Amino acid sequence: MLEALKKEVYDANMQLPKLDLVTFTWGNVSGIDREKGLFVIKPSGVDYDQLTPADMVVVNLKGEVVEGKLNPSSDTPTHTVLYNAFPDIGGIVHTHSPWAVSFASAEMDIPNLNTTAADTFYGDIPVSEALTKAQIETAYEDETGNAIVKTFADRGIDHNAVPAVLVAQHGPFAWGATPAKAVYNAKVMEVVAEIDYHALTLSHRDSHVPQYLLDKHYYRKHGKNAYYGQNNPKSNAHK
Amino acid sequence: MLEALKKEVYDANMQLPKLDLVTFTWGNVSGIDREKGLFVIKPSGVDYDQLTPADMVVVNLKGEVVEGKLNPSSDTPTHTVLYNAFPDIGGIVHTHSPWAVSFASAEMDIPNLNTTAADTFYGDIPVSEALTKAQIETAYEDETGNAIVKTFADRGIDHNAVPAVLVAQHGPFAWGATPAKAVYNAKVMEVVAEIDYHALTLSHRDSHVPQYLLDKHYYRKHGKNAYYGQNNPKSNAHK
Amino acid sequence: MLEALKKEVYDANMQLPKLDLVTFTWGNVSGIDREKGLFVIKPSGVDYDQLTPADMVVVNLKGEVVEGKLNPSSDTPTHTVLYNAFPDIGGIVHTHSPWAVSFASAEMDIPNLNTTAADTFYGDIPVSEALTKAQIETAYEDETGNAIVKTFADRGIDHNAVPAVLVAQHGPFAWGATPAKAVYNAKVMEVVAEIDYHALTLSHRDSHVPQYLLDKHYYRKHGKNAYYGQNNPKSNAHK
Amino acid sequence: MLEALKKEVYDANMQLPKLDLVTFTWGNVSGIDREKGLFVIKPSGVDYDQLTPADMVVVNLKGEVVEGKLNPSSDTPTHTVLYNAFPDIGGIVHTHSPWAVSFASAEMDIPNLNTTAADTFYGDIPVSEALTKAQIETAYEDETGNAIVKTFADRGIDHNAVPAVLVAQHGPFAWGATPAKAVYNAKVMEVVAEIDYHALTLSHRDSHVPQYLLDKHYYRKHGKNAYYGQNNPKSNAHK
Repeated sequence: MLEALKKEVYDANMQLPKLDLVTFTWGNVSGIDREKGLFVIKPSGVDYDQLTPADMVVVNLKGEVVEGKLNPSSDTPTHTVLYNAFPDIGGIVHTHSPWAVSFASAEMDIPNLNTTAADTFYGDIPVSEALTKAQIETAYEDETGNAIVKTFADRGIDHNAVPAVLVAQHGPFAWGATPAKAVYNAKVMEVVAEIDYHALTLSHRDSHVPQYLLDKHYYRKHGKNAYYGQNNPKSNAHK
Repeated sequence: MLEALKKEVYDANMQLPKLDLVTFTWGNVSGIDREKGLFVIKPSGVDYDQLTPADMVVVNLKGEVVEGKLNPSSDTPTHTVLYNAFPDIGGIVHTHSPWAVSFASAEMDIPNLNTTAADTFYGDIPVSEALTKAQIETAYEDETGNAIVKTFADRGIDHNAVPAVLVAQHGPFAWGATPAKAVYNAKVMEVVAEIDYHALTLSHRDSHVPQYLLDKHYYRKHGKNAYYGQNNPKSNAHK
Repeated sequence: MLEALKKEVYDANMQLPKLDLVTFTWGNVSGIDREKGLFVIKPSGVDYDQLTPADMVVVNLKGEVVEGKLNPSSDTPTHTVLYNAFPDIGGIVHTHSPWAVSFASAEMDIPNLNTTAADTFYGDIPVSEALTKAQIETAYEDETGNAIVKTFADRGIDHNAVPAVLVAQHGPFAWGATPAKAVYNAKVMEVVAEIDYHALTLSHRDSHVPQYLLDKHYYRKHGKNAYYGQNNPKSNAHK
Repeated sequence: MLEALKKEVYDANMQLPKLDLVTFTWGNVSGIDREKGLFVIKPSGVDYDQLTPADMVVVNLKGEVVEGKLNPSSDTPTHTVLYNAFPDIGGIVHTHSPWAVSFASAEMDIPNLNTTAADTFYGDIPVSEALTKAQIETAYEDETGNAIVKTFADRGIDHNAVPAVLVAQHGPFAWGATPAKAVYNAKVMEVVAEIDYHALTLSHRDSHVPQYLLDKHYYRKHGKNAYYGQNNPKSNAHK
């Protein structure tokens, strides 16, 4: 069942240790088959060096396990909420990568201070509000998803333009068109958090990129006028 | 004598360089056979790449060497005190991992600011009081153990719920049900110290997790209602 | 066409991940054949582990692709401006190395505080002024090159004596007599930025090297009285 | 000539990249045969992966090359001064390791804040005064050695008890009974500088170890009552 997607999700999970985004088993990637309405996710608490594509668990959009011998990631309800709320995303990743968790602990957005951020994120990476006692004690992982969705709605942020978030006191989630792109976005977030920490503690001032630089860099890589890389609409290779 | 335990303790010691927790020989792991009242510990000052399971030294709960050609870790008396005071622990580790030593040098607790900490530690990781001149000059390594035990008693901290400590001006000790779990806890402490340093210097405010988030994350992984991973009471895999 | 130069530029590009200067595809090196007036540059957005010398793209000094199946780096116009403005350089590199980007985000020069800097850079590594809205919206990559050239002209800096720059809000460019020397200079800039960050946040004071120490270290390695290494005019090996 | 010493010095040099103490060729180790009054040193500016034992250069205590096809390290006069001034040392190392250079740039001692420092250094690692214009312009490398010697004399520091120094605005030198021990001391200095930076920026207060803790840890590893390791006078292995 969904063997190609399982392999794709497995490969994306295996990128996490390679990209220095996880310690022990603290991360998970999922990917969705939108036609079937099923997603595939890493099992909970399994070491990366023991993981196989066949270990991946298949879950429906109600968050119910459809296939798999292992317990799915404990964050599965969060993934379920996000797939339902963001109908155009194809993959989701959650990690405890340390620079992002530092910003989440400080309850600070990761600000967009440079073209490294602007190339991938069309604005700051927002931090959610902290979950309330009631939210945490009832359906914690669902409410984590709801807090993310609310953050984007309340602040009017397009989740495709800023495909990442920090959950306050917790850590980062990222998503993308595919599981691999979600992992890419998670790595960019981590690198940007590291750069921003040093920039902020050097300058102690607001050094956000201006809107026109954000536009320039973001749209060099995204949308109908993109010209970075080999496969974008206006790249020379396609003239 | 205790060959299986020697192998287990050896394996746990070999995790220290792999997890970037030691420089040179600055770390040691021990593990105990509670029925026999004997523990096994790394020899003092031996390079990790020359270590073998047979080099492990067997010590009784008075701190006396029972078997072994090599000198046991100079921290053996500290391990002895801890095994006697904490009768339910199975393994102990001491390192000079740099982020933890930075907090120990600053004589600051490693605060519980995020779910990465809360998943493993049910509260802040305490720093002991500095040892007095008399303590240091009489039985230094015993008094180090006593200072740890006193810290948990004075502050009313459950050593199973917070299985790690900083000795002021010195560095971290961690423990657990097994030598491998002690090493796991030592690594989590180091990662949390790194994250906390950056969070504290970003926000310069108290950003402790609230009690209900601490409860939620700690008990997701511990106790009779744990549901993280494949082997916990309420994990789906066991339904 | 230019096969030896393609190999040289390929090799210099492959140094970038080895020296920890790039994440993903975020870097590019070029090298020029001054007699032919043609330069060779990395294609845009190609993974380093899939790159081959044959993928390198040949470009003329108007910035036009002369040979190559792939789209050249999107930064090609910046390289073109620099080769035209600095007629004695043989290679250029651009990366998003994190310490340098932190200084670029803070819009701070990387100051010359120690002999590690003075050995390679005869003064501070300047940060350009931020590009204006008009510059960004018309010919962004050309204007990036123009901003670099203007920085050196306005501040009277010799681009051979300080072979590196930060573009404000963006990141580092470096150059040299060859592609390999450009990459060397880019790595030194990154190391110096890391050292300077910690020195500045430790001392919070101006600790520039004095002119006579700058002279001593720079001219130990450069010019007709250089005596460092095996191939300099006054090295013992050549007596 | 001195083939065994050349191999020993070569091996010690090759530890520098392995211990992350050097970038490119920025480091050198020497070792001395006191009976012959000759020392062996790395050639100047040679890549570590191209170095062989036969490349080592033999120098006498006037700093003159006695054997070797290659130019010796440009820091050879500094080594010469130190071997003459400190007649009991057997090896010297100089690097540009980044944490140590940060303290040298800030012209701050590396303070003794914890047992990691106290195990190896019996006090703070001092920073020299900055060299004067006249010193730099006449015999720079000799004067670097003289500044080190003067620092220990003026401040009454025993160079065997604190076998390392920072030269202001420049970087670290370390020494020891053998080339390997010099490299060991250089690595400890770098680790201590890293730990201290974070401790100082966390606590912003003086957190020096008290004298009695310094005594305890230093003499656990040094002198006639040492009991750490397998070969010390009072280690259990020798009972």
